[in-house]
Amino acid sequence: MKRIAFIGLGAMGRRMVARLLQGGFAVNGYDVSAAARDAVATLGAQPAASAAEAARDADAVILMVVDAAQAAQVLFGDGVVRALARGRPILLMATCPAWLVSEIAERVTAMGRGFVDAPVSGGTAGAETGTLTIMAAAPSAVLDAVRSIFAVLGHKLAHVGERPGQAATLKTINQLLCGVHIAAAAEAFALAAKCGLDLPMVLDVLGDSAASSWMLNDRGPRMLESDPAVSSAVDIFVKDLGLVLDTARHAKAAAPLAAIAYQFFLATSGRGLGAADDSQVLRSYAVLNGT
Amino acid sequence: MKRIAFIGLGAMGRRMVARLLQGGFAVNGYDVSAAARDAVATLGAQPAASAAEAARDADAVILMVVDAAQAAQVLFGDGVVRALARGRPILLMATCPAWLVSEIAERVTAMGRGFVDAPVSGGTAGAETGTLTIMAAAPSAVLDAVRSIFAVLGHKLAHVGERPGQAATLKTINQLLCGVHIAAAAEAFALAAKCGLDLPMVLDVLGDSAASSWMLNDRGPRMLESDPAVSSAVDIFVKDLGLVLDTARHAKAAAPLAAIAYQFFLATSGRGLGAADDSQVLRSYAVLNGT
Repeated sequence: MKRIAFIGLGAMGRRMVARLLQGGFAVNGYDVSAAARDAVATLGAQPAASAAEAARDADAVILMVVDAAQAAQVLFGDGVVRALARGRPILLMATCPAWLVSEIAERVTAMGRGFVDAPVSGGTAGAETGTLTIMAAAPSAVLDAVRSIFAVLGHKLAHVGERPGQAATLKTINQLLCGVHIAAAAEAFALAAKCGLDLPMVLDVLGDSAASSWMLNDRGPRMLESDPAVSSAVDIFVKDLGLVLDTARHAKAAAPLAAIAYQFFLATSGRGLGAADDSQVLRSYAVLNGT
Repeated sequence: MKRIAFIGLGAMGRRMVARLLQGGFAVNGYDVSAAARDAVATLGAQPAASAAEAARDADAVILMVVDAAQAAQVLFGDGVVRALARGRPILLMATCPAWLVSEIAERVTAMGRGFVDAPVSGGTAGAETGTLTIMAAAPSAVLDAVRSIFAVLGHKLAHVGERPGQAATLKTINQLLCGVHIAAAAEAFALAAKCGLDLPMVLDVLGDSAASSWMLNDRGPRMLESDPAVSSAVDIFVKDLGLVLDTARHAKAAAPLAAIAYQFFLATSGRGLGAADDSQVLRSYAVLNGT
């Protein structure tokens, strides 16, 4: 594995490209945005004129696109699978519904290329520092061939299973907990405010007690700011908790806490705050409770 | 502060008495159960024939009773306040509704004794090792006089405010997050199981990702056991999430995630599992989803 085609150069993708270059890989970068292609060119990547051109001389393709529809378009519509040499692997690292990942994987493997379902957790901070948690589902032999790539992108690689779609499912479960924990922190702060407690004190005590969560300690401080910098947008959780509910519907399983949390992110976006930091879901509780 | 009257010698109380004895305090122990009194006598405490007798020669009284009604009965009905010398403090460390704590505090201070509202987080493990988080609300001078007691019981003392009831409110907010996080872990496991994922693998990955919570890592392993040892019972969260909802009703604030979590603990208890470990709230999701 020496040369990687990297398709999708957004907030996550461009940081992951930087890590690959630092790790000694050559990178062919492609994005529909010329500005995004130029940005990775300045880092030392080779900008490509099309997704297929990026794939042509690559040892592997990484997709960090928006959703499964974009992944399918790039792979089959834009000809990435045909452009990639037979036997080489495609790594889908975007967050997508498990059943669509399975369909894409079947089409890719039927065309004689490898496929790894490999979503990540850790956000832009994890992408920047190479400390992503990578959840991978693929036959062991296919996964083993790309471990050197994952080693520079993440600090933890979990082999979730042999069947593509299993890692997408685990990422969905991950987002269920992340979304509910953010909303729970907002609910706790809103009730504390209504009862007249000092919120920085509440965060200080609960962030170090049995009530703590990774999200309470990460989003909690930004919930106490009136206009925090955007680390991850409200609309990401509108999408990802929507994915959780679609997955639960697909499995015919009840997920009532996720359903409630979703309403609060959705309403926050509906008031025009979709691009705000996701900590601002607190504002939905604040307007609801009049605090 | 040399001799403490400790009233309420249950799972928390007897462990806290052991810590006080190890810390060099003398302890007069009282509980309605003779077996509980005998148990602390073997640790080196002085068993008392009544709550008032325990208080008579004490420098301070600690209450670790079941609820506010028991606290009021012990203090006013059984004569503990009158038995305690004037000016000495009463520390209410049980989890009680904030408005009842305020009422009790007013009566105690009107009788010329000090009062500290001091609930704890950390459970029996924290009680055993002296690593409780103690939330205290009292005038600074009253609190300062009992810091040496709290120092052997907890590793963190938060002075929440000057008014008794404020710490009870914070403990309630703490329980909101704890209860929702346990139920969220159960919801995540239940959906993961329905989707065919291996649950120990799910716990291993998510316990170390942005999806993690203190409760996921503490209760998660016990959720994967069929009959785990009881660390804290389902009925404790039926009580404590009930207290969260009472507090929200009292404040006229919405707490929808807490309300959903409460339903699952309540139904678990209703199927006869009230004394089971609270991790077994997972079974309500399992029966609901048929997994």
